[in-house]
Amino acid sequence: MGVVITISREFGSGGRELGRRLADKLGIAYYDKEILLEIEHKTPFSKEYIEEVSESRPIPLFPIHYGNSWAPVTDPHLKQSIEVYNAQADIVRELAEKSSCIIIGRCADYTLRNDKPLRIFVYSDMPSKIARCRSREKDHEDLSDKEITKRIKAIDRRRRKYYEFYTGQKWGDRNNYDILINTTNANIKELADLLAGHIEKKNNDK
Amino acid sequence: MGVVITISREFGSGGRELGRRLADKLGIAYYDKEILLEIEHKTPFSKEYIEEVSESRPIPLFPIHYGNSWAPVTDPHLKQSIEVYNAQADIVRELAEKSSCIIIGRCADYTLRNDKPLRIFVYSDMPSKIARCRSREKDHEDLSDKEITKRIKAIDRRRRKYYEFYTGQKWGDRNNYDILINTTNANIKELADLLAGHIEKKNNDK
Repeated sequence: MGVVITISREFGSGGRELGRRLADKLGIAYYDKEILLEIEHKTPFSKEYIEEVSESRPIPLFPIHYGNSWAPVTDPHLKQSIEVYNAQADIVRELAEKSSCIIIGRCADYTLRNDKPLRIFVYSDMPSKIARCRSREKDHEDLSDKEITKRIKAIDRRRRKYYEFYTGQKWGDRNNYDILINTTNANIKELADLLAGHIEKKNNDK
Repeated sequence: MGVVITISREFGSGGRELGRRLADKLGIAYYDKEILLEIEHKTPFSKEYIEEVSESRPIPLFPIHYGNSWAPVTDPHLKQSIEVYNAQADIVRELAEKSSCIIIGRCADYTLRNDKPLRIFVYSDMPSKIARCRSREKDHEDLSDKEITKRIKAIDRRRRKYYEFYTGQKWGDRNNYDILINTTNANIKELADLLAGHIEKKNNDK
């Protein structure tokens, strides 16, 4: 297996930009939403359904912790959500085996844990997340800071719950990552250069 | 103010080695235990007393949170501990103003928060901390892994409580740092080279 880098990120922290720049710099594949398309090919479910369940954890009818324990799954929505998650995990594994790559989100750090990818977590403070959201999306223009903050928090809460449901690990807990980067006041391009240098060096040392 | 880097670290994670190498590489000052000597010069207290109270938070007679609130301080031990902490904070500020430097521990990230130092947190998993302790200290030779683990945990618990008492912030919480580095399986020399390159670049850009 080549270089595999997983990037988890808080919404608006620039993690995706960091990933894209890093992939460009290293000349390796970059996977983000592409994985959802692959799930569509591999399962009977619609694009919309996959998008929905691959962002939100299912709410089971009884307490269940998928990552660490087993319980009979009778709820059909839960069953299908787990099916989508498993298809996603298979695709993540196939992509990582195929070539060096960067994978954004998708619990890839957990799925690939035995292959020792470089696990990066990107975060920043709220004012810089708000500024980043405003700069990149036109439809945030009419929202107040308070409204954007609410949206950002809701998205991150969903990411956290999804991750924790399927992995049994705490999202953003430093022990699950190799490096955590605060992008508040940081220049993402510089960070990408820095990490690319580090990764190239590590790889040459092998 | 020049380049100021603060390093907080879990015991046995190699944070001190990273700091020393980084200071060498950048050709800047490195402060660790030296600060305790300075406190001795500036206060009426003995070396032993300073060592004791600058590692452990005082146990006040009533609940008090020094970092964020005020309460009349009547307990003499608490009073003296705070005196040592304040002398330490003054010295940290003086050193940071004097020249570019790296400061290990001492709540320096909090003391210098308005000067925007580069705040690094270094950590690793328990097996690699145990291995690092064994490799560097002869007196760990007779201890079992379980005993070393107990010691490491006790030291980190003390560090955490000391930091939280004086700063009102959570020790190791990613929001209080710019970069968190997991040294499990990492080469500290390589990490120092990497960070030095990043810091030099940032500084040239100014």
